[in-house]
Amino acid sequence: MPHIRLPEGLQGIRGPMAFRPETAKPLNELAETLLHAPNSLPAGDRELIATYVSYRNDCYFCQTIHGAIAAAHLDGDEDLVKRVKADFQHADISAKLKALLVIASKVQRGGKHVTAADVEEARQAGATDIEIHDTVLIAAAFCMYNRYVDGLATWQPREESLYRERGKQVAREGYVQVSRQYIPEPELQTQGA
Amino acid sequence: MPHIRLPEGLQGIRGPMAFRPETAKPLNELAETLLHAPNSLPAGDRELIATYVSYRNDCYFCQTIHGAIAAAHLDGDEDLVKRVKADFQHADISAKLKALLVIASKVQRGGKHVTAADVEEARQAGATDIEIHDTVLIAAAFCMYNRYVDGLATWQPREESLYRERGKQVAREGYVQVSRQYIPEPELQTQGA
Repeated sequence: MPHIRLPEGLQGIRGPMAFRPETAKPLNELAETLLHAPNSLPAGDRELIATYVSYRNDCYFCQTIHGAIAAAHLDGDEDLVKRVKADFQHADISAKLKALLVIASKVQRGGKHVTAADVEEARQAGATDIEIHDTVLIAAAFCMYNRYVDGLATWQPREESLYRERGKQVAREGYVQVSRQYIPEPELQTQGA
Repeated sequence: MPHIRLPEGLQGIRGPMAFRPETAKPLNELAETLLHAPNSLPAGDRELIATYVSYRNDCYFCQTIHGAIAAAHLDGDEDLVKRVKADFQHADISAKLKALLVIASKVQRGGKHVTAADVEEARQAGATDIEIHDTVLIAAAFCMYNRYVDGLATWQPREESLYRERGKQVAREGYVQVSRQYIPEPELQTQGA
């Protein structure tokens, strides 16, 4: 049972987002920009980073929904998502994505763990400064989303088929668009005070 | 030296925010809503939660600037900020804020550490559901901001007087307003794609 009275029937982060539309707005815009907006790093790669960090933080909802979104971007390759979580160094992904996942795994433990050598390795594998920046911020952001979802003890049903369908929809339409289906418009007086 | 080429002369999070205005926008809006917008929880209390989590995450920039913002909201009481960081259970703050800081410290370690008993204790001390929600999200968000700032090895000068002046300005004007001074407007084509 959630720690506070959240709207019923909304899984994971959707519950607190519908409860507090004022904070849901920037949270969805951040996810949209980092994970869905056009980027030299493919959306599938960005979702794999989000999934991996959520797995390391042991957040069932986030690793399952972002794993499903990643798979939707990767022609439905759910096995690749599983292999990345279990042992990304031996998964069939690019050397660049492996180097970025090393950085993400350091950020998950704490920002100071990232070394100049980690960043140099990503650069040697072809990563740009924006891609390195976005990797650090995706990993950092999921240290927030994961704690938000689990810190309020949100409802996280275990039926994977639910996540698969939602994953396809988010991969297609993006975070901001999908969030309009279940989040009321924030009231204006609480914005930009 | 920062891990990527950031605009020079901008401390802490300001460097990557000026480097990537598209993500700076929701990051500043989230801080504005959580820390500066009108709320039944005083801004000083909210900034103390942010400062405490940043201290626990060992982020010099965030604990110093948010400590300065907290002090600005608390009639300049820098000693109280230090006492909260060192041992909040014996600091001169309300029972409600102590209970919320317990929740925040659990979130800092990981969302699943928060218990129903922690939440019940906050409620008994007078905390509302929105205040409990916001405490969880402030703590989670600083697990992001701290990792973002340290994961990119941003410039964090040690002159406390710099932070004191900035703290007063942010306490007065808010995050979004102050950020307009150093972040260029994001380009439209990267938004909401």
